[in-house]
Amino acid sequence: MYTRKFRNNAKHSSENNFDALLAEMKKQQNSKKQGEKKNASKKAAKETSKLKVIPLGGLHEIGKNITAFEYEDEILIVDCGVAFPEDDMLGIDLVIPDFSYLTKNKEKVLAVVLTHGHEDHIGSLPYFLKELNVPIYGTKLTIGLVETKLREHNILNSVERNSVNAGDVIKLGKSFKVEFIRSTHSIADSAALAITTPVGVVVHTGDFKIDFTPIQGDMIDLQRFAELGKKGVLLLMCESTNVERPGYTMSERSVGGIIDRIFNDSEGRRIMVATFSSNIDRIQQIVNSAVKHKRKVAVIGRSMTNVVKTAGELGYLDIPKTTLIDVQEAKNYSDGELVIITTGSQGETMAALSRIALGEHRQIEVKSTDRIIISASPIPGNEKSIYKVINELVKKGADVIYDGLMDVHVSGHARQEEIKIMHSLVKPKFLMPIHGEYKMLRTHKDIACELGMDKDNVFIMANGDMLELGKNSAKLTQNAVPSGQIFVDGLGVGDVGNIVLRDRRHLSQDGLMIVVVAMDKATGEILSGPDIISRGFVYVRESEELMDEAKAVVNEALDKCERRNINEWAYIKTLIKDTLRDYLWQKTKRSPMILPIVMDIE
Amino acid sequence: MYTRKFRNNAKHSSENNFDALLAEMKKQQNSKKQGEKKNASKKAAKETSKLKVIPLGGLHEIGKNITAFEYEDEILIVDCGVAFPEDDMLGIDLVIPDFSYLTKNKEKVLAVVLTHGHEDHIGSLPYFLKELNVPIYGTKLTIGLVETKLREHNILNSVERNSVNAGDVIKLGKSFKVEFIRSTHSIADSAALAITTPVGVVVHTGDFKIDFTPIQGDMIDLQRFAELGKKGVLLLMCESTNVERPGYTMSERSVGGIIDRIFNDSEGRRIMVATFSSNIDRIQQIVNSAVKHKRKVAVIGRSMTNVVKTAGELGYLDIPKTTLIDVQEAKNYSDGELVIITTGSQGETMAALSRIALGEHRQIEVKSTDRIIISASPIPGNEKSIYKVINELVKKGADVIYDGLMDVHVSGHARQEEIKIMHSLVKPKFLMPIHGEYKMLRTHKDIACELGMDKDNVFIMANGDMLELGKNSAKLTQNAVPSGQIFVDGLGVGDVGNIVLRDRRHLSQDGLMIVVVAMDKATGEILSGPDIISRGFVYVRESEELMDEAKAVVNEALDKCERRNINEWAYIKTLIKDTLRDYLWQKTKRSPMILPIVMDIE
Repeated sequence: MYTRKFRNNAKHSSENNFDALLAEMKKQQNSKKQGEKKNASKKAAKETSKLKVIPLGGLHEIGKNITAFEYEDEILIVDCGVAFPEDDMLGIDLVIPDFSYLTKNKEKVLAVVLTHGHEDHIGSLPYFLKELNVPIYGTKLTIGLVETKLREHNILNSVERNSVNAGDVIKLGKSFKVEFIRSTHSIADSAALAITTPVGVVVHTGDFKIDFTPIQGDMIDLQRFAELGKKGVLLLMCESTNVERPGYTMSERSVGGIIDRIFNDSEGRRIMVATFSSNIDRIQQIVNSAVKHKRKVAVIGRSMTNVVKTAGELGYLDIPKTTLIDVQEAKNYSDGELVIITTGSQGETMAALSRIALGEHRQIEVKSTDRIIISASPIPGNEKSIYKVINELVKKGADVIYDGLMDVHVSGHARQEEIKIMHSLVKPKFLMPIHGEYKMLRTHKDIACELGMDKDNVFIMANGDMLELGKNSAKLTQNAVPSGQIFVDGLGVGDVGNIVLRDRRHLSQDGLMIVVVAMDKATGEILSGPDIISRGFVYVRESEELMDEAKAVVNEALDKCERRNINEWAYIKTLIKDTLRDYLWQKTKRSPMILPIVMDIE
Repeated sequence: MYTRKFRNNAKHSSENNFDALLAEMKKQQNSKKQGEKKNASKKAAKETSKLKVIPLGGLHEIGKNITAFEYEDEILIVDCGVAFPEDDMLGIDLVIPDFSYLTKNKEKVLAVVLTHGHEDHIGSLPYFLKELNVPIYGTKLTIGLVETKLREHNILNSVERNSVNAGDVIKLGKSFKVEFIRSTHSIADSAALAITTPVGVVVHTGDFKIDFTPIQGDMIDLQRFAELGKKGVLLLMCESTNVERPGYTMSERSVGGIIDRIFNDSEGRRIMVATFSSNIDRIQQIVNSAVKHKRKVAVIGRSMTNVVKTAGELGYLDIPKTTLIDVQEAKNYSDGELVIITTGSQGETMAALSRIALGEHRQIEVKSTDRIIISASPIPGNEKSIYKVINELVKKGADVIYDGLMDVHVSGHARQEEIKIMHSLVKPKFLMPIHGEYKMLRTHKDIACELGMDKDNVFIMANGDMLELGKNSAKLTQNAVPSGQIFVDGLGVGDVGNIVLRDRRHLSQDGLMIVVVAMDKATGEILSGPDIISRGFVYVRESEELMDEAKAVVNEALDKCERRNINEWAYIKTLIKDTLRDYLWQKTKRSPMILPIVMDIE
C-alpha cells in the first residue's frame, strides 16, 4: 500500500509550495517511469500539439461522470462515476462507462483526479482500477470514501491513493498541473479543478453550489475563480444539474434552522431523519440539534453507518461521544431522548427506512408518536417509491414531514444565477456545459450566450466526442472514441448486453412458453411430447383450456411435418413457434417468448 | 339500443321537475321489475336500515375510482375507473377494480352514475358492463366519451346510456335520488353528486377545482353546495388529489394567457402543443389563439382525434370549419400558419409526440424552428419518459417550453383552500376523504379537524371497507367486502395474478436457464442431454466457459442419481435445480429461473 498525503496550509498554493511538491512528484515520476526517453523535439511538439478533452460519461445523462484530458502521450482522467439503471435495464445493478479508449491507451494514463465523493463521480473506480491501476488523487474525505469502496472490492492495498487539500497543486506527467479549488456542494470537501496544460487553463467546476454559509469548512473560493479568470481561462467545464431553475439555491444552513424548529416542536416524541448518507453537513446539523435538545443519536443503514464512521474519523463530522449510541442501546432511552438518522430517503427497497415502514426492520418499529423527517427530494424516477414509504409510515400513525410540506431539504447544485456568477468570474474563451441531460446543456448554452458569450465558442458535446483545443482554437469531433454503457449485473461486468436485455424485456411483458418434443433421430417419429411448460404467461390452473388448445395446435403442426416427412429441426422449430405465436396472439393478444426444444434420441 | 336523455333547463331541479322525472322513471322501473313484491314492512325497515357506503377503488391509490351505495336491496354505483399499472406490474395494460361483491349482488345493482369522463372514472366500464349490464347516467360529454369506449369494445348497442344536464335529478330505485351539480375540473361537463337516501344526503364531489372563470360553461355551482349544506348533509365524500398543496389552483383561463403570449412571440414558426386529450378547455384555448393568429389547426394522436370529434359534435369544442385541417393538408401551409395539437404530454412510448421526437411519425418531422409546448405536468412516475421526449426534441433543434419553464399548465384539482371552501359550504356531519394515497387522506382529515370537525366523524377508509350510516350514526367495518386489483393483459382479464407477476419479475431480473434431459422410463438411463438453453441470463457467446461448466455441474448431479439408482422425476429435478442455482450464484451472484425438464421415453 502506498498512500501519500499532500498537505498545504496556505489557502492557495504559492509557486514555492508548488516547487516543493514538484520535486516530490518528480522523484515519484522518475522511479515509476524509468528509462523513459527525453523528447528532443519537445518544444516544437508543444507548439502544434492540441489538448484533447474527451467526456466518456455525464453528457446527455445524469450520472457516470468521467472526462479524459489527453495531451501528446499523456492522459489525465477527472472523476469516474456510476449511473443507476433506467427502468428498462431489467436486472442491472449499475451502469459504468465504456473505458475501452483508456484501456487501449493504457500506457498514456497518468492518474484519476476526483472532484468529490459522490457515487456518480467515484462509483466506477473499482471497475476501472481493476483494469488500469493508476494513482488516484482527491481531498481527504473523497479518498476516505473511495477507500471504503476499494476495501469492499478487495483492491484497497493495490491502489495508490493520494490525499490533497483545497488549494494544493499537483503536477501529473509532463503536461498537467492540477489545482484543487475549495467548492461547496451537498457533500463536504468537494473541489473544483484548475488544470493547467501547455495550451492553457481548463476550469472544471465538478458539482457545486455557491454556499456562503456552509456547515463544514470555508465557503466556495470565489476569489480563486476570479483570479484564474483574470489571468485567462481557455475552457470552462461547468455543471448543469440545476441550470433550468431560476434564482439561487438556498444555503445548507437554511435546512438546519427548519430541522431545529421541528426539534423544538417535538418534545417527548422520537425523531427519525432520513437523508443522503453522503450529506455530512446535513447529518452534522441534525446532530447539532440533537445535542442542543439533549437527545442521543443512533445511526442505521449500511451506507449511513459507513459514512458517519469515515467522516468522523477524518474530522468532517463532530459527534460528541456521549451523544452517539448504538441502535441496540436505543431501548434504554425514552422517545423524547432519541434521534435516529437513517438511509432510505429515496424509498430504496432495501434501505433501513423502507424496512421500518414495512415493519421489517429488526431493531426499529414505528410508533404512532414518531416524528419522521424525509430530508431529501425525490430524484426523478423515485417519486413513487418514496411516496409508498411515506404512506406506510403515515398508516402506522407517524407524523411524516417531507419536502413540499416544509423546506427540509436544499439541493447541492447551482441554479441559474449561481451559474451566471461562475461564468462571470471565470470568463472563459470556450465553454463546455457538463453533467446534464441534453435539454439542460442547451439551456446552459442559452444562458452563456445571454451573458455575451459567442455561441460558436460553446460546445454541447456527447459522450465520446472530442474537443481539440489549441491556444486560440477549438475543434469538435463527434464520435471520436468509443463510449457507452457497460452493465454491471451481480459479478458480471459487460456480460449482459442489449440482446440479453431485450430477452428480459420480452420475458417481463408476456412470460414464456416452452414446447419440448423428443424425436427419433433416424425416423423422425415423436417418442415423447409435445410437453408445454409456461411461466409468467397465464395462471395455468385457470387457463387449462387454453393450454390444452395450445398443445393441440402444436400437435397439428407436428402431424403436418410427419405427413410431409420433414424431420429437420430448424424447420420444425420455426413451424411450432409461428403456429403457436399466431394462436396465442389471436386468443390472448399477448406474445410470450416461445422456445421450442426438440430432443434427438439416437 | 336504448338512450334516454333527461333534459332540464332550470339550473336546479325544482320539485315539480323532479316529479315529472319521477313519473317517467317509475314507468321504467315498473316495466323492468315486474312482479316485484311490495314490502309490507317498508316503513319499519326504513327506520332501522342503514346506508352502506363501500368504496371499491380510489382509496390508498390514485385511480380506479368506484363506490357502491347500498340501501336494503338496492345498490347504486358511482364511477367505474381504471388505474394504470405500477412499475412492478410487468406486462399489465390496465388495472380494474375487483367487482365480485357487485356481481354476487347482481340483482341489487340499479345503475352506474358517472361524475366525469376521465379514464380513472369511466375506464373500467366496458369490463364492468360485460358482467353487469345496468344503465349508466352522466352528463352529455361524459356519456359521449363512454360511447367511444363501448364502441371499441363492441358493446355500445347493448348498453342503456342516459345523458343528463347539470341540475338534473334522477331517481334510481326506491331509495336513491341523484342530483348532478355543475362542477369545474380539467375536463368539461364534470359534475358533483348529491345523493338523497332514506338516511340523509351524501355529497360526492367527484374531481373538482373551484374555477371562477372556466372556458366552457358556468363556474362550479357553489350556491347549490351551500344550499344543500344549509339543509343538512350527512356525509361529504371529497377528493384529495391536491390536498397536500397549500393555496388555490389557478384558473384554466390563466393558461390561455400564457399560451397566447407564446403565439405572439412565435411569428413564422410552427407551433406544436401536447396536452391531455380530455382537457377540452385547454384545446379550446389553443384553438382560440390559433384563430386569433390566423393559424390552421391539425390534430394528431388517436385519443386526441377521438375527443376532438366527440366534443365538437356535442358542442363542447368550437373550432371554425376553416381552421381545422387534416394533418395531411399541413404541407400546404407555411410553418407560421400552423398549430399542431398532439397527444404524448406524458412521454407515452406510442403517443404521437414521442414518435415525432424519435423521427418515427409518418406525417410530422421536427424542424429546428419549431416551438413546442408541453401543456401538462408529469404525473408521478412519468418524469423520465417525458424528459426523454423533451431531450430528443431539443436535440433536433426545437424550442421546447414545458412546465417549470413557464406556467403552461394548471391542475384540475382543488388545493387546500378550495377544499376548505367545499367543507365550509357543505358542513357535513361525517366526512370521507376520497381519491388519494393514504398520506393525502390523512392530510385531508387534518384539514377537516382544523376547520372544527370532530376527528371521530372523519373516516379514512380503505377499498373494501364499509361505512354504515344511520340518520345520526356512522360505523366503519374494515375489509367488509372483497376488493383489489384485477389485471388486464391483452384480452385477458384476471388471468394474470400474483404468481404470474412473480415469475415475470424473476425472469426480468436474471432471465432463465432450461435444462432438458430425455430419460428411459424403465431403466433411468439418460438417452439425450442434458441440454442447456438460456435466455436473458448472459450473452452466451461470450460466456461459453460458464455454460460448459454449468453443463458439467448438471452431469455430475445426474451421475449421482444414476449411481444411487434414483429415477424419480421430482427428486432429479430438485437436485438439478439446487445444484445449478448454487453454482450460478457462486459464479455470477445472479439467480436465473431454472427450469429442469425431464422427458420420459417409453
